[in-house]
Amino acid sequence: MQFTDKDENRLMQLMLHRRDIRGNNFLSQELTEQELEKILLAATTAPSVGLSQPWKFVIIRDKQIRQMVYRNFELETHRARQKFSLEAQQQYQQLKLDGIIEAPVNIAVYYTSPENPIIGNNTIPEVGEYSVVCAIQNMWLMARAMNIGMGWVSILNPSVVDDILKAPAGHKLIAYLCIGHVKEFYDIPELEKLNWERRKSLYASIVHNQFSEDYETAHDHRQK
Amino acid sequence: MQFTDKDENRLMQLMLHRRDIRGNNFLSQELTEQELEKILLAATTAPSVGLSQPWKFVIIRDKQIRQMVYRNFELETHRARQKFSLEAQQQYQQLKLDGIIEAPVNIAVYYTSPENPIIGNNTIPEVGEYSVVCAIQNMWLMARAMNIGMGWVSILNPSVVDDILKAPAGHKLIAYLCIGHVKEFYDIPELEKLNWERRKSLYASIVHNQFSEDYETAHDHRQK
Repeated sequence: MQFTDKDENRLMQLMLHRRDIRGNNFLSQELTEQELEKILLAATTAPSVGLSQPWKFVIIRDKQIRQMVYRNFELETHRARQKFSLEAQQQYQQLKLDGIIEAPVNIAVYYTSPENPIIGNNTIPEVGEYSVVCAIQNMWLMARAMNIGMGWVSILNPSVVDDILKAPAGHKLIAYLCIGHVKEFYDIPELEKLNWERRKSLYASIVHNQFSEDYETAHDHRQK
Repeated sequence: MQFTDKDENRLMQLMLHRRDIRGNNFLSQELTEQELEKILLAATTAPSVGLSQPWKFVIIRDKQIRQMVYRNFELETHRARQKFSLEAQQQYQQLKLDGIIEAPVNIAVYYTSPENPIIGNNTIPEVGEYSVVCAIQNMWLMARAMNIGMGWVSILNPSVVDDILKAPAGHKLIAYLCIGHVKEFYDIPELEKLNWERRKSLYASIVHNQFSEDYETAHDHRQK
């Protein structure tokens, strides 16, 4: 199959307009089963090491379960805040960093470790987890093409989430996602809008052939 | 920005027709700087925890460096083969699993660990690495939209690659990619075509609310 310049341009637009969505931007409107299925189908087209497809998607609509996860988010986000400067802590407190309750659907994405050898999964053990992340990025892009928002909540204690969801042995939490229709997609990332962090130029991230030839540990961006 | 049903359908086609490309399928034709830049720009639009953008792309065209990396691939793929059954080893030996020499461009993608606290990066330390993987999946999809192939070589010893590329401390190899124009994109994954592995149904990967309610450790796919 041949794709065209138009496909390439639309994909770039899609990638540029994909945002991390939080609770200040989700609508309560339900996601239909059909919408959810499309997003999950996109996930399953992702590459995976040795075609192992080591992903499990826990689709959480149950409000009690989401409340339990939210309580852990509150605890951990409070703890995390202490690591920043006092000035940054004030701003941190005003940031909305999750959409666990506001989004109609949460999805906990797990990696399942293989029972048998997987081709390509030997020297770099994390490569199976990375396959799951490729699936998550596919979900994010497909959701955006459907004008549906997704947010990734990383401020959670994975072992607490495992307990809440009764995750069996050999299952590792990779991401906790919130998905739903949105009020709006911002033009630029929220953390950039709020002047917390700014985007790097492409050239700050490129090295040619070897690090020693042209590499400088020039950090061209502000970090709090 | 609103996307349409057509955008959604084209994206699904793109995801379905993305393949892992190996040396039996790369053309020697050079990638232009402009082509490479588009693929890398797609990477930099990926989500990253706290907008940390913790990625470095080492663009390798140098043939000597690629030869050194290829020697490690040969060693590690030989070692990895021993883990399979005798029957599987025969088939393994016939698989082409890399395109290090055949592709005109290799890209080693590194994660750089932060010097300061990053918002959202506290309870799950791997989340920064996962951001880099999101960038890689963006590259894969953008390349495919440009009818350019990409393959991910995971059978490498990361510390040997670090030495070859003179990676500084705090840099972790996430992926080693081969990129170039291709003879063809197969309709289905090569490992499926060769009957090594088959694709799971979506429903084999879904759980509702909690694992205990409906989860069975039914592995519905053959693994060697």
